[in-house]
Amino acid sequence: MPFHAICFGRQYGSGGHKISAAVAEKLGYAFYDKDLIVLAAKNSGLSEETVKQTEEKPVRGFLLGMMTGSAQSHGTIHGVGTPLSDKTFIAQSNVIKDAAQKSDCVFIGRCADYILKDHPGLISIFLYADSKARAKRISEYEKCSEKAALGMMKKNDRKRASYYSFYTGRKWGVMNNYDMCVNTSALGIEKTVELITDFVLDYIRRSDNAE
Amino acid sequence: MPFHAICFGRQYGSGGHKISAAVAEKLGYAFYDKDLIVLAAKNSGLSEETVKQTEEKPVRGFLLGMMTGSAQSHGTIHGVGTPLSDKTFIAQSNVIKDAAQKSDCVFIGRCADYILKDHPGLISIFLYADSKARAKRISEYEKCSEKAALGMMKKNDRKRASYYSFYTGRKWGVMNNYDMCVNTSALGIEKTVELITDFVLDYIRRSDNAE
Repeated sequence: MPFHAICFGRQYGSGGHKISAAVAEKLGYAFYDKDLIVLAAKNSGLSEETVKQTEEKPVRGFLLGMMTGSAQSHGTIHGVGTPLSDKTFIAQSNVIKDAAQKSDCVFIGRCADYILKDHPGLISIFLYADSKARAKRISEYEKCSEKAALGMMKKNDRKRASYYSFYTGRKWGVMNNYDMCVNTSALGIEKTVELITDFVLDYIRRSDNAE
Repeated sequence: MPFHAICFGRQYGSGGHKISAAVAEKLGYAFYDKDLIVLAAKNSGLSEETVKQTEEKPVRGFLLGMMTGSAQSHGTIHGVGTPLSDKTFIAQSNVIKDAAQKSDCVFIGRCADYILKDHPGLISIFLYADSKARAKRISEYEKCSEKAALGMMKKNDRKRASYYSFYTGRKWGVMNNYDMCVNTSALGIEKTVELITDFVLDYIRRSDNAE
């Protein structure tokens, strides 16, 4: 039986990080967020600082097949002259794929849902929220006005959408790419965690029965 | 405390009708689907046959304010020379709004989420599914091949999207318009009904506590 990989996409300020971390804890799954960068840096031979600087700035066209194709091997894909951001993406993809082979995991962002699209244990979830709730959460986190938070919200959404679209060829936040999409304003953080955990457990039970 | 109105949008072949009817039964709420047409016809003075013929064919631009504005009264909006399809939409809107004032309800389709956008007890849910699962369900229901079902699926989605966009000015099936969006292929009909019922009950508990 394959390991389960729960991939979260999320709008900035939706509480997605908190929710996905809590779901991972409830399920006892490994949780991959920023730590992924560190792992990716180590595995790729790029310095951690370089990875941090480049990881969300796609700079040019990218041969998707290079990193999604089954012929790809970790040993040969580096050093073919791709820009740093592409190298970082490839390194992150390898970390994500390796982790999903080794244990049950929760991933947040970084196109993990696309990178693991052929993984038999994939469950894909998107978290969003009302603009007002997002702005309030961002302003508290970033210690800024709600007006400034609204600006950051738009900028970050654009960045995530562009990054996702650049590396996957898919449109970010389109429901058909996910198993469930939840407005976190509806139930709040705690109950959303419960809802998603129940969903995941039901999903896994159903997959197990189908085998 | 206002009555609760659960509005379902759904892709054709997603099992949305079965799921929303089951959720209504579980919650003990009134269920409004095709019966709405009959009620609308009776209330508007249009014959049932005419309503059926026109109800999903928007034919021209429409003054949204006419039916959403608070100044509108049931007595004066009819007979102002609007085409039949607009009259049908207005009649249906009135039925939906009246029903939501009188008891807890579940509505399916017919832009009810938009018509009730200012209703304090609104919970809005969208149901979708994988294309393969939808085609299978449609082919069983319509007794046709899966290829023919795929064609019907695309045609019906286009029709629903166009109808929704025409009368609401919103894009159909965009997650931010809903409290939750569920891929019914993930858990299947029965477990999706449970998931949604739990979501609704949690939502209501949270609203009650906030008051």
